[in-house]
Amino acid sequence: MSRINEMLRRYGSIGKNEDNSITRVGNSEAYRQAVGAVREEMDRLGMQTDVDPVGNLHGYLAGRDETKRSIVIGSHLDTVINGGLFDGMLGVVGGLEVVHRLREQGITLEHPLEIFGFNFEEASPLGGTFGSRCVSGMADPDAPDLAQSLPQYGWTPADVAAAKRDVSRYACYLEYHIEQGDYLDTHPFDIGVVSGIVGIVRYTVTAVGMSNHAGTTMMAGRRDALVAMSKLIAAADQKARELSDTLVFTVGKISVLPGQENVIAGECTATFEFRHMDKTVTDAFFAAVQKLAAEIPCCTFHFTNTCQKYATVCDPRLMEAIGQSAAELGVRCTVMPSGAGHDAAAMAHEGVPIGMIFVPSVAGISHHGKEWTREEHVDLGADVLYQTVLKADRFD
Amino acid sequence: MSRINEMLRRYGSIGKNEDNSITRVGNSEAYRQAVGAVREEMDRLGMQTDVDPVGNLHGYLAGRDETKRSIVIGSHLDTVINGGLFDGMLGVVGGLEVVHRLREQGITLEHPLEIFGFNFEEASPLGGTFGSRCVSGMADPDAPDLAQSLPQYGWTPADVAAAKRDVSRYACYLEYHIEQGDYLDTHPFDIGVVSGIVGIVRYTVTAVGMSNHAGTTMMAGRRDALVAMSKLIAAADQKARELSDTLVFTVGKISVLPGQENVIAGECTATFEFRHMDKTVTDAFFAAVQKLAAEIPCCTFHFTNTCQKYATVCDPRLMEAIGQSAAELGVRCTVMPSGAGHDAAAMAHEGVPIGMIFVPSVAGISHHGKEWTREEHVDLGADVLYQTVLKADRFD
Repeated sequence: MSRINEMLRRYGSIGKNEDNSITRVGNSEAYRQAVGAVREEMDRLGMQTDVDPVGNLHGYLAGRDETKRSIVIGSHLDTVINGGLFDGMLGVVGGLEVVHRLREQGITLEHPLEIFGFNFEEASPLGGTFGSRCVSGMADPDAPDLAQSLPQYGWTPADVAAAKRDVSRYACYLEYHIEQGDYLDTHPFDIGVVSGIVGIVRYTVTAVGMSNHAGTTMMAGRRDALVAMSKLIAAADQKARELSDTLVFTVGKISVLPGQENVIAGECTATFEFRHMDKTVTDAFFAAVQKLAAEIPCCTFHFTNTCQKYATVCDPRLMEAIGQSAAELGVRCTVMPSGAGHDAAAMAHEGVPIGMIFVPSVAGISHHGKEWTREEHVDLGADVLYQTVLKADRFD
Repeated sequence: MSRINEMLRRYGSIGKNEDNSITRVGNSEAYRQAVGAVREEMDRLGMQTDVDPVGNLHGYLAGRDETKRSIVIGSHLDTVINGGLFDGMLGVVGGLEVVHRLREQGITLEHPLEIFGFNFEEASPLGGTFGSRCVSGMADPDAPDLAQSLPQYGWTPADVAAAKRDVSRYACYLEYHIEQGDYLDTHPFDIGVVSGIVGIVRYTVTAVGMSNHAGTTMMAGRRDALVAMSKLIAAADQKARELSDTLVFTVGKISVLPGQENVIAGECTATFEFRHMDKTVTDAFFAAVQKLAAEIPCCTFHFTNTCQKYATVCDPRLMEAIGQSAAELGVRCTVMPSGAGHDAAAMAHEGVPIGMIFVPSVAGISHHGKEWTREEHVDLGADVLYQTVLKADRFD
């Protein structure tokens, strides 16, 4: 087994459950154990290491020209509950593998090389990509919702502020990650050159009708909020498929009031989430959903926006370097957007050029003990990452 | 204000809340207070009264021929939480009004006359129409689910058994009730001659798809259980309207797993309830729903039957007597089914011929503080009930 696959199993297994899934939630005992183990590997590789006030692991490898800005490789060390071996950890061991290869080949880069193992990338009361948002300065230490959730982790706004680094010193940020979808697995590609991270729009949608007796209220006189919502969900699902192949629409939560089997639902609330790279597509979809809702009789729909994350675009020069590296290695690759959010977005938000490399997830399964990426794909991605770092080192 | 309207307000107001709704849940302090007050009225009218071991109030008025079976008038004294003035209490004060009128006119019936004010007609852990099911013997004292819920009310199976009366001694059972729907209120009728109580069929329906990441799983590859369920609900609602004007279909509860806004629902469970007088109609509807479900791609549907109450038919001779009474009084009436369950069903189940008189509910509102029936309708219904009792007294 290759070195990166061995490192992946060694560090990625920290937090393993009886069913072979991994639970290494941000800041947990298992998380801290992983930080310690990966830090030791960084130390052995001669990197200067530190753990910042919000639990992010950081390693620094000096370059030949210390006036040059850093090439940064990062991803996260936390997992969801009952998650897998690859999500996050792959990108961190990818960085370690790059340093191993540089040492083996006696190469010292022009640029400094930094590696981040971020805390709390996965959803938490702190918000997703918490660790990387602190580092890039995207997280506002004084935001009221953050102030509310920080104390349960023993942190203060000052810790968030202290974790911020000067990202204008970063030449670029590279993240090597599993796809988490099934596009690569079901198409003849081994590497995905990520074009960007899709925008996420969320609304809480409420249908207001009238609650009434399920036996005495004839169908013609009903204002059934769940029937109205069902019609909207089915129609919006159809509309999403028509609008764009890469638009996704999800209703993950639904509830009705009063919620008794013998009472007509007077109110139905659901979450509508849609993602696409192009804001004109998500805007057009939302307009279409509102139009569909207006055409459904007997109930009134209300829409409350709860999330409006704009799409993040990858740096064209880094995309080209990744694509060229793959081509030189004879690897079949394709350009594709990321449907999931990543730490890279927090860097891009603060102006750092980002590049992302995807490898296939078997059957598209992720956030699950069955999450899997074949050894050869892990190796191919590491090869592409290494070559991309060498190319980036020659930029300007 | 007429005597019956006064009695209705006097006894029906017991348990009144600040918002004018009524909370007189079975067995509660308010319920016991109502039992006491109505019992005093029965005593003043010269009836023999008793309260059985499960809290049902009973009054007996001797007839001229004690070998004859009793004419029984009944309904319930309990309400739902935040219910109205009329549901249940109207039928009990209807019985008191009949006795008042008999006394005023110096009439002693051939048959004994009995009045019941039942406990726990409304939904509870004991099951709906608990009090009347105990009286008729329909409730099995040794049923496991009953054994489990009895202790919280301080009762034993022996109490249930002791409440059973010899219903073969009942010539007929008459129940005077508000419609609880809006049919009479929206049509030119003041009285409904009930043809029967609809059958109720309930299924727990589960759609099984596959949970997955809402961002990385493209629409074409999804097995979204909530989208599948939404399609089924919308299609079944349409089908119910096509099959019969008087078929009602309700999905009152719905839930999804895992229930996160950024995760595709892998499983969706909902309650399907449908009611109609004719079992062939509910059977045809269920077959149609199963067919619709089989046509929905990507998910598998499972159906578990949770309720199969057959329709109860009213006695043709009593229906005729009610219709004739209305006609003689010049009241506009129509024959119609009851979409709600009633204590009458428990009597019919044990072979007692039943007749039911409906009066209009304003806007069809019931189980709500705004439940209302106009004074003149309350009076008309009492007139019809009185004339029906006189007619029934002349049967065989």
